[in-house]
Amino acid sequence: MNIEKGADKIVKTLRVLVTDQPGYLGRLTSAIGNERGNIGDIRLISAGLTHNLREISIYVDNESHLKRIVSAVSGVEGVSLEEVVDLVEKAHLGGKIAMKSRVPITSLGDIRKIYTPGVASICRKIQQRPELATMYTGIRNSVAIVTNGTAILGLGDIGPVAGMPVMEGKAVLFDHLVGISGVPILIKSKNIEHIIQTIWHIAPTFGAIKLEDIAAPDCFEIESRLAEMLDIPVMHDDQHGTAVVVLAALLNATRFTGVTLSDVTVGIIGLGAAGIGITKLLLAHGVKQVIGTDLNESAKEMLNSLGGTATDLSGVMNDAEIVIATTGCPGLIKPEMVRKGQIILALSNPDPEIRPEVAMAAGAAFAADGKSVNNALAFPGIFRGALDAGATAINKQMLLAAARAIAEHAGHGELVPGILDANVHAAVSDAVFKAAWDSGVAQP
Amino acid sequence: MNIEKGADKIVKTLRVLVTDQPGYLGRLTSAIGNERGNIGDIRLISAGLTHNLREISIYVDNESHLKRIVSAVSGVEGVSLEEVVDLVEKAHLGGKIAMKSRVPITSLGDIRKIYTPGVASICRKIQQRPELATMYTGIRNSVAIVTNGTAILGLGDIGPVAGMPVMEGKAVLFDHLVGISGVPILIKSKNIEHIIQTIWHIAPTFGAIKLEDIAAPDCFEIESRLAEMLDIPVMHDDQHGTAVVVLAALLNATRFTGVTLSDVTVGIIGLGAAGIGITKLLLAHGVKQVIGTDLNESAKEMLNSLGGTATDLSGVMNDAEIVIATTGCPGLIKPEMVRKGQIILALSNPDPEIRPEVAMAAGAAFAADGKSVNNALAFPGIFRGALDAGATAINKQMLLAAARAIAEHAGHGELVPGILDANVHAAVSDAVFKAAWDSGVAQP
Repeated sequence: MNIEKGADKIVKTLRVLVTDQPGYLGRLTSAIGNERGNIGDIRLISAGLTHNLREISIYVDNESHLKRIVSAVSGVEGVSLEEVVDLVEKAHLGGKIAMKSRVPITSLGDIRKIYTPGVASICRKIQQRPELATMYTGIRNSVAIVTNGTAILGLGDIGPVAGMPVMEGKAVLFDHLVGISGVPILIKSKNIEHIIQTIWHIAPTFGAIKLEDIAAPDCFEIESRLAEMLDIPVMHDDQHGTAVVVLAALLNATRFTGVTLSDVTVGIIGLGAAGIGITKLLLAHGVKQVIGTDLNESAKEMLNSLGGTATDLSGVMNDAEIVIATTGCPGLIKPEMVRKGQIILALSNPDPEIRPEVAMAAGAAFAADGKSVNNALAFPGIFRGALDAGATAINKQMLLAAARAIAEHAGHGELVPGILDANVHAAVSDAVFKAAWDSGVAQP
Repeated sequence: MNIEKGADKIVKTLRVLVTDQPGYLGRLTSAIGNERGNIGDIRLISAGLTHNLREISIYVDNESHLKRIVSAVSGVEGVSLEEVVDLVEKAHLGGKIAMKSRVPITSLGDIRKIYTPGVASICRKIQQRPELATMYTGIRNSVAIVTNGTAILGLGDIGPVAGMPVMEGKAVLFDHLVGISGVPILIKSKNIEHIIQTIWHIAPTFGAIKLEDIAAPDCFEIESRLAEMLDIPVMHDDQHGTAVVVLAALLNATRFTGVTLSDVTVGIIGLGAAGIGITKLLLAHGVKQVIGTDLNESAKEMLNSLGGTATDLSGVMNDAEIVIATTGCPGLIKPEMVRKGQIILALSNPDPEIRPEVAMAAGAAFAADGKSVNNALAFPGIFRGALDAGATAINKQMLLAAARAIAEHAGHGELVPGILDANVHAAVSDAVFKAAWDSGVAQP
């Protein structure tokens, strides 16, 4: 999706022996930082008499960046670089997910329960009362994660198979965070009709459909037509998952700055899936004035058709109290464009349209980048709540409820909470469940 | 599939307190047997001072049959029926499978490995070298289990959702027996073109396609066209899985009786998916004369087109040394139709076309029914071997190799081994892997 454009930093892990005395680990991390390497986890693998073996995850731009860091690390006294390990590759070996049995098989009797002849009685029950499929199959706990590979992260149209690691990653998050069975489905087509027909034909397998990394503008039509055709929730995550997290961040950012969100003009720079999804949700939240711009004329027309107002980049920067950029263009917003008192969310990852510190120095009241605004905060709880409610759709009320729940769980001074905070996902799920009932799309 | 027609006995579990003295358990099981209840597992749940609590699985025809057994059990002295439990329903609650993560998530660093930003480097690798998808995704370990619900077990056209418990059961067996990730796909269509198009469009997701419980004759065209279109294995289990196990059984039955399989006339009664699949495999094995019959004229034409000879029921019974029935019609073969010295496999479950003891009394040299001839002996190892070899198809050589491996693993005097014998599945997998290489469909 747009806001992850450029999100292709390389993750490497340095296995290092570090002298077990004060200062050595500090010198090591400083050496990495001086070469502009971002440091992730530092794990203690084993403690020796004089040295500790540690694994340090670093995020680098490319191989030559890695070389500079390796060279710097090798020059640190008391530190010995043992190996550069690619834990990312290791984590992906053989795939990150698998369909597993939930029942024990220890005897022929077990097989006769879950397979013939026992299974036939369950089939018959469902045949007679189709609603029993919810009880006796995993359908209601399954979400198809569907892509055709046309907009994988910020990598673009790399095809569905090359996008599979992302789909598997979503399934991992579904499992870990909310216990949903996420099933990647790769579709070999860029034809809207074929994509819709394919998903429609396999829809009985799933409790909901999560569209993923399908390029704009096709994603809009695919989502809206499927939502119309199917009686299960269909949600394009790049639009709505992202929008929910952005709205949550804005709810907190406006609170910090004492602004009332619905009263101000919000400007959207970049009207792809994310920008359009954010526009829709802000309008649903009650924002009266959304202006926006894009290089693509038809994207601007879509903004107008939604009730926003298309303009150009300087128009957005001049007129908007809140600016949200999802363009994938690092540095697009120059300091001199920033208006005093503006709230700026420059969400392109890893390099934002303007760095928060630069925006603040230029007069912004509040500025953030996209590191923490990750739609993995939203989609697990949204789908969990929708499935639990037996919702026939994921509507605006449910998305708004999700955004409020996320906002409420942010720590003091934080825009949004952390992805691994289990309370958030439970709260989002509860809020979405309730909103589904209140808005009449739930089923008993 | 045909040979499981009528395989819809009800499995119930009796929780009983049985006096812990010799004879009481015997009286209890005799009481059940006298009412023609089949007994499965008997588990000791807890041992008391004077009584043991046991769970006894029984297979009954219907609710009134259950009532008669319950009444008989209640009349046994020293036995107290506590509860009739439906362990089958319990086993199905919430579905029998789920997509699970294979990677640990304990820190944000883990997420940054398996999701953004780490995942992007893996996507790029696959984009540049598509064959790396085998290493970095689960695609090569996944098999789609596809049905449109038109021939679920012997229940017929009950629709794909009511067929889901069977598809989940196959996925459970895939996981337990050979570690394959089996992904049910329910297709809402009876239109051959739509089914083919749908499967073709989602095929990049999987290492192989297992067609399941799709009615004849559509299953033949769907399978053959998809096998032609796709460069991954496509196998209709009801045809070929069944055929492999039948051939394995025949290899042993002919060994017992001193007959050479390729020299005799084999007669097939019932030319549905199973009957046609068996015909194809027997011809591939070198059987020179296959005759057969069906109520459906076009099924007989198909037999002729394959190189067999269509006749009628009495023609089969008069001319065939080996008779294989897969009709779903209990009692179809009368004792007076049996020719002296015939080998008869009457495979309809649970009630065969002729009971083995009746066939033997009528002069058959060897007779068996379908209880042990379960295609779960074949499909797990066939797909495991095909996936491991990177096979582009599942061809006759691979099916023949699977049949031989199964036959070789049967215990002394047994037609085929038990489903839970892990050695069988490993042996089938190895044999299929080797046959894939030898026949030129494997890929490095």
